Amino acid sequence: MTISIAHLGPPGTYAEQAAVFYANWLVKKTGIEGILCPYPSIAQSLQAVASGQTQLAVVPVENSIEGSVTMTMDTLWQLDSLRIQLALVMPIAHTLISCATSLDKIKTVYSHPQALAQCQQWLEMFLPTVQLIPTNSTTEPLQHLENDITVGAIASSRAAQLYNLPILANGINDYPENCTRFWVVSEGEVEANYRMSSISPSHTSLAFSTPANVPGALLKPLQVFAQLGINLSRIESRPTKRSLGEYLFFVDLETDRSSVQMKSALADLSIHTEILKIFGAYNVLPISKDLI
Amino acid sequence: MTISIAHLGPPGTYAEQAAVFYANWLVKKTGIEGILCPYPSIAQSLQAVASGQTQLAVVPVENSIEGSVTMTMDTLWQLDSLRIQLALVMPIAHTLISCATSLDKIKTVYSHPQALAQCQQWLEMFLPTVQLIPTNSTTEPLQHLENDITVGAIASSRAAQLYNLPILANGINDYPENCTRFWVVSEGEVEANYRMSSISPSHTSLAFSTPANVPGALLKPLQVFAQLGINLSRIESRPTKRSLGEYLFFVDLETDRSSVQMKSALADLSIHTEILKIFGAYNVLPISKDLI
Repeated sequence: MTISIAHLGPPGTYAEQAAVFYANWLVKKTGIEGILCPYPSIAQSLQAVASGQTQLAVVPVENSIEGSVTMTMDTLWQLDSLRIQLALVMPIAHTLISCATSLDKIKTVYSHPQALAQCQQWLEMFLPTVQLIPTNSTTEPLQHLENDITVGAIASSRAAQLYNLPILANGINDYPENCTRFWVVSEGEVEANYRMSSISPSHTSLAFSTPANVPGALLKPLQVFAQLGINLSRIESRPTKRSLGEYLFFVDLETDRSSVQMKSALADLSIHTEILKIFGAYNVLPISKDLI
Repeated sequence: MTISIAHLGPPGTYAEQAAVFYANWLVKKTGIEGILCPYPSIAQSLQAVASGQTQLAVVPVENSIEGSVTMTMDTLWQLDSLRIQLALVMPIAHTLISCATSLDKIKTVYSHPQALAQCQQWLEMFLPTVQLIPTNSTTEPLQHLENDITVGAIASSRAAQLYNLPILANGINDYPENCTRFWVVSEGEVEANYRMSSISPSHTSLAFSTPANVPGALLKPLQVFAQLGINLSRIESRPTKRSLGEYLFFVDLETDRSSVQMKSALADLSIHTEILKIFGAYNVLPISKDLI
């Protein structure tokens, strides 16, 4: 049996790396083989699942340095039938890939804006005069690298291997503790195979809008969680896109959706929120450095 | 007398447009003439003020569709001597600038990632097959547009005028109520000239980290504001960059820093926060459509 998994492409992106890890985990656990399907954007990866083109998607949610991936959150709110099955936490180590023989030859560095931002201090120190050009993914510029010794690209060492390109500098991220959290997402509820089915979920993610912009409007939903002893591991605001100053709140909670506290919280929450969307309950699978 | 104002360049960006509006307001009010200084990034605009290269900077804070400008928040936290003097709210109307005679000739569209995201649905409907290329600013690609009829760029109609380029489609943003909030920022406290000095500030902005990741850690600071009847007009989390799951919170409050409630809130807040940074108190100046 096989299962199709959408991710941000082209091959060699960190999203593909996370998808490969997930596919390896899945085949070991269940014998189900994952078939990777690259898409040109994160939104299109999620739309692929919603429209039934693929069965799962692996999408980045937040990075420990650069924060939330807003496209993932906005698309999840829009396509509200999607459900999170599993979270993956992957360490990120950036490399500078280039055919140049030394750093002083490089005039231009290409990469995804998140990767450029995560190597900002290194770039300022070692390549202060180069032009930084944002791209749609870390691997997109790699196909143009071979014929030009004045350019470099920031991507993973795995991407350098895949495209058969030399690494000029290793571990160039400003913070060594750089990691990205991904979600494995399906359309609606799916069979337990695709998740850690033996233990009950440790996290629940949801989003809500508040009924009015008055003092304490956000406080009430947060009070519900605090009074029931539920820890928020993340809260993130996003614009409703209706007018400036109106927000949605995305929260990750350290509890199972079907726990007694959470059931009680959801009942109370419906009173203090305008729209409430629950994206699912799931476990977190850390990806160790030697596996990637 | 003159005053230097840093902003994201090259000329023709929305940040420059906001800076021009501010300079016009300032000269009318005080006779002080603003000299605009374009910088290649938002971070460099703010660093210019911190290092004394310019006296002020005008930087985007959030857009009603795409949300927070994280680079502004991260740089303000880092350079904590900067103070907000004024907020500007500017309506945003994107145009497609191109030398092509019709949409079907266009193969590639360049713009800043925020602008591309704000026109996502329009692009999917009218240019579903074009390649979208992110750039460092909306105006950066305009200098290469003249000789190629297969490319387009998304920027303001003012940018088209400045670069003497034709507009192929007007008002292409997905949401008509698109606007961006900017902050006018100085190094430390400055004389009242640069702000709306006749009325007391309507907003105070601050950021804090919480002492421990336990249920209710964020609730306590929010309770302080709610109990004193202070409305939060925005709350935004950013990673501390120490480890995944540790956050700073940026809040905008609808009160003057020196109000009785706010003084009381600040005293209470110091108990429930780890690091607390106050970015200043200021008024909001709306920019009407016919002025830009």
